[in-house]
Amino acid sequence: MKYRRSGRLVDMTHYLLAHPHQLIPLTFFSSRYQSAKSSISEDIGIVKDILEKKHLGTVATSAGASGGVTFIPTVNLEEAAQLIDQLCDKLQDPERLLPGGYLYMMDIIGDPALMQELGRIFASHYRHSNVNAVMTMATKGIPIAYAVATHLHVPVCIVRHEQRITEGSIVSINYVSGSTKRIQTMSLARRSLAPNSNVLIVDDFMKAGGTIRGMMDLVKEFQSTVAGVGVLTEAVHEEEKLVSTYTSLTKLSRVDEKNQQIQVERGTIFN
Amino acid sequence: MKYRRSGRLVDMTHYLLAHPHQLIPLTFFSSRYQSAKSSISEDIGIVKDILEKKHLGTVATSAGASGGVTFIPTVNLEEAAQLIDQLCDKLQDPERLLPGGYLYMMDIIGDPALMQELGRIFASHYRHSNVNAVMTMATKGIPIAYAVATHLHVPVCIVRHEQRITEGSIVSINYVSGSTKRIQTMSLARRSLAPNSNVLIVDDFMKAGGTIRGMMDLVKEFQSTVAGVGVLTEAVHEEEKLVSTYTSLTKLSRVDEKNQQIQVERGTIFN
Repeated sequence: MKYRRSGRLVDMTHYLLAHPHQLIPLTFFSSRYQSAKSSISEDIGIVKDILEKKHLGTVATSAGASGGVTFIPTVNLEEAAQLIDQLCDKLQDPERLLPGGYLYMMDIIGDPALMQELGRIFASHYRHSNVNAVMTMATKGIPIAYAVATHLHVPVCIVRHEQRITEGSIVSINYVSGSTKRIQTMSLARRSLAPNSNVLIVDDFMKAGGTIRGMMDLVKEFQSTVAGVGVLTEAVHEEEKLVSTYTSLTKLSRVDEKNQQIQVERGTIFN
Repeated sequence: MKYRRSGRLVDMTHYLLAHPHQLIPLTFFSSRYQSAKSSISEDIGIVKDILEKKHLGTVATSAGASGGVTFIPTVNLEEAAQLIDQLCDKLQDPERLLPGGYLYMMDIIGDPALMQELGRIFASHYRHSNVNAVMTMATKGIPIAYAVATHLHVPVCIVRHEQRITEGSIVSINYVSGSTKRIQTMSLARRSLAPNSNVLIVDDFMKAGGTIRGMMDLVKEFQSTVAGVGVLTEAVHEEEKLVSTYTSLTKLSRVDEKNQQIQVERGTIFN
């Protein structure tokens, strides 16, 4: 199939967007489009230019025999702030209040397009952190974790409270829930995370940080390091958090059950 | 910002891919690019042409005052078959065998790019089924469910075995697990699924079909209908399955624990 420039641009844009954080040799495109490398380079220049102007990402070029291009998703911080402000408004809806000061959030977590956008914010934030795995806790952390991992092109490992028989040998640790002070167990299949990984921990909610702290300990059990911690919402906690370095998108600063008021503001990612 | 055609094509491709199954008025693009509608129509023609030639999707046009375009993701069935054949090969690796004839699958389920591709196969298959929600069972169905829902642009609702306090009122039903014949409970938050939805049920694995059957019953409890059932892998079951109409991507036709052999073939989606 022979392409004109317009056709190449459409296909190349699609291809790059579908393959973030992956080095694509120029020879791949020149053989795909049966075009000279010089034309391909020009095409890439056009794609790069627009993606950067729209703050959708950048296209990094590496030279040499194994030279090629890598699409790195980014976000426009202003647009991200707008999106987060809308999310804060949504979260402040008193209808969300559940007994015990919990918030109903499944409509947010259940929106795949929103998860993709929020995931891209984290992926942009950690794009230079050499992340090679995303870890999350079942159940509600999974959607945001996959969105982040899709944009970073790394695998996801899912930590669970129960010990499942269907995953082979597992590593379990005990941890203390920061808010309830109860001892709990979390497990991860031995095969789910390669040793020497650099792990980005992602979850939907953090209060005292006990669960996140547990995941950080679990990462060590796999001879791996923590690249960062990202949460969708953090709640203000009376005592010091068990995790000192993290990035939150939103912050639940006040829940007043009596007067049915919730106050949500931008998280630490905008600091 | 003023765009040349090449720039418009790059941005428009990105925009359409990020907004599947959403009607976008032509006026949106003409104001975004400060270009005449006639130029926009030509641009759309070029994008549509390439996306269709590459079997990535189609761009449906609706006329009239509220006229616009809708990107509908599709797949090339030949490429899909290749991908599924590779997946079958992977699944046949005897290293996956776990005690009890279970298969380790978290490396597959933990690969977000693969989940996106498999999700697109289901989204393409059900693209004319007026799906307006995807339902799945925690935990391992979630990644494939989100991938399908992303491409169909519909929300996801997550059914669980436990009864969580943090989601408000829930609807629970009892169901009989098809393979173990045990009575179990599954629950879904009342707010997670709007009445009169047309629900695509997606899961990672189906043996006798008891869990899927349970989800079908749960859909009825929400005055909703089942648009279809899609599973990543079905296992051959000695008795008749409890679900008669479903689509599987792969079929686990034989597990021989003694000789460490697994046989996996293409699922019903290729029938």
